[in-house]
Amino acid sequence: MPIKYEDVLNARNRIDKYIYHTPLDKSMYLSDEDTNIYLKLECQQGMKCAKLRGALSKLTSLSKEEIERGIVAISSGNHGAAVSYATHLLGIKNVTIYVPATTPKSKVEKIKYYGANVVGVGENYDEAHEIGLERIKDSGSVFIDPCSDPVVLAGQGTIALEIFEQQAQIDTILVPIGGGGILTGISVAAKHINPNVKIIGLQTAACPAMVQSLKDKVFYEMFPTGASICDALVGGVGEIPYNMAERCIDDIWVIEEEDIAEAVSFLAKKEKVISEPAGAIGVAAVRKNHSKLKGRNAAVVITGGNIDESLMVKLLNQY
Amino acid sequence: MPIKYEDVLNARNRIDKYIYHTPLDKSMYLSDEDTNIYLKLECQQGMKCAKLRGALSKLTSLSKEEIERGIVAISSGNHGAAVSYATHLLGIKNVTIYVPATTPKSKVEKIKYYGANVVGVGENYDEAHEIGLERIKDSGSVFIDPCSDPVVLAGQGTIALEIFEQQAQIDTILVPIGGGGILTGISVAAKHINPNVKIIGLQTAACPAMVQSLKDKVFYEMFPTGASICDALVGGVGEIPYNMAERCIDDIWVIEEEDIAEAVSFLAKKEKVISEPAGAIGVAAVRKNHSKLKGRNAAVVITGGNIDESLMVKLLNQY
Repeated sequence: MPIKYEDVLNARNRIDKYIYHTPLDKSMYLSDEDTNIYLKLECQQGMKCAKLRGALSKLTSLSKEEIERGIVAISSGNHGAAVSYATHLLGIKNVTIYVPATTPKSKVEKIKYYGANVVGVGENYDEAHEIGLERIKDSGSVFIDPCSDPVVLAGQGTIALEIFEQQAQIDTILVPIGGGGILTGISVAAKHINPNVKIIGLQTAACPAMVQSLKDKVFYEMFPTGASICDALVGGVGEIPYNMAERCIDDIWVIEEEDIAEAVSFLAKKEKVISEPAGAIGVAAVRKNHSKLKGRNAAVVITGGNIDESLMVKLLNQY
Repeated sequence: MPIKYEDVLNARNRIDKYIYHTPLDKSMYLSDEDTNIYLKLECQQGMKCAKLRGALSKLTSLSKEEIERGIVAISSGNHGAAVSYATHLLGIKNVTIYVPATTPKSKVEKIKYYGANVVGVGENYDEAHEIGLERIKDSGSVFIDPCSDPVVLAGQGTIALEIFEQQAQIDTILVPIGGGGILTGISVAAKHINPNVKIIGLQTAACPAMVQSLKDKVFYEMFPTGASICDALVGGVGEIPYNMAERCIDDIWVIEEEDIAEAVSFLAKKEKVISEPAGAIGVAAVRKNHSKLKGRNAAVVITGGNIDESLMVKLLNQY
């Protein structure tokens, strides 16, 4: 098994002083007499995203010699920003983040702010990924992979440790699936603590890559996507998440984009929480499938808060 | 001195397991080469407000016998909700919150949700306060006063302990003043840790009660207010905050309502933080007085996140 409970405990020992223990708030609006719904607000983590845990887990595991070779990631989104911020926290220099050359300036500035070099290559993510990987091979730098590195996934698993410490009665956890890294880390830790816990993966209907991978028994590293507001949930699945899916995922629910959009507005207006669309998918899932959760004590992981400001205003006006 | 550093340490020992250690996030948008601005996000505390700390501090200090006499507070806002939630966390029954009979149903429901009895009396806060106090006298219940109880203020002071643990270089703290309880608790703890720290109080121009109290050397328990979106910052000052003002407050800045409204929108759009207007006053203060903070490492305490949803949407559209 590429990732074990002990890996998650070790990751926690390394990263605990750098991260926030994010709230696990019971939702008054989503709970009722039979059902308790708790929101795990990783959208309030440092850099407003759960991916910080994985980046820190990897970076704190490296030797001096590895760090001196330089750190590289490929992402214009939460993972890229998280790696830049994590290296800043740890005082690591010589950090390069590859992003598509088309990345908006505001995203580039955010990554640069914490000291990383940002290099724009290719016209889209797939091209940036290909060119970035080629250059890394030549440089000998350490590549921080968000979904196919067991040490990164162990960092994400620390979310589950906190959830059970905050509310021991949890029997169900809902987690978004993009590559699947966050779900896999959480599931390994959660199922060790409570072997009966149900882990429900959530995918946008615009890109149900894991659903199709498991149905076809094919590892879809790339996957076509429809129009989506969930930047973090499109594209193919990660290799470890695919290989571990059978033991890690009890069910996958596919959620419509419109329900996700509505959930962003609900979270802001009622719960006073800013979530990016990918982060809000769990709340959409609860609102559309409430009867399936009857009698459960469910934690909904809200994975990030980095929503574009004009999209946020649009959704608040629309729903 | 009615409140000492040791009181704050003792309060922390009692409440630490019930509260969140809220983020202290450096603001990329408000900082520059000379000046570091950090946001202390008490708007992400339990019940989305700093007042939870004060309520828990008082409730955890009571004897069994006192608890059996019943708990009472007078507030339709954050203090009332915080007392109800805190008694829920501690398993305390027999809790009554007096609110004006005109209080909107949504606020009443939120207080009731955690088990308190809500009693509507009087047409406004002053009337509710008078009638509530009268009934408490007869009942022998324990009254939780947000601004004139040293044990409550010691709870608020725990915010300062966290700030310095998170960022030892802090030399300036900006805190809203309504009654002044939160500022007073923070100041006592902060000035013990760093005697050179500057504590800047913030008042809305719609109700500069503390400014006038100190100018006139008169304790204004009530004070007239103009139109304001800052529910938590209107009315008179608290007795302990007034008496301790000289040693606790280094400066008071008066902030215009429009700048506060704009700061709410800035916080949501740029920082991805939902703040109520009273909580956002510190961000308005930084934006309007940036040159006064040149060279400082300032923490801005954002005291609450319970903003009315229609006001939030209005401000996001307007600014």
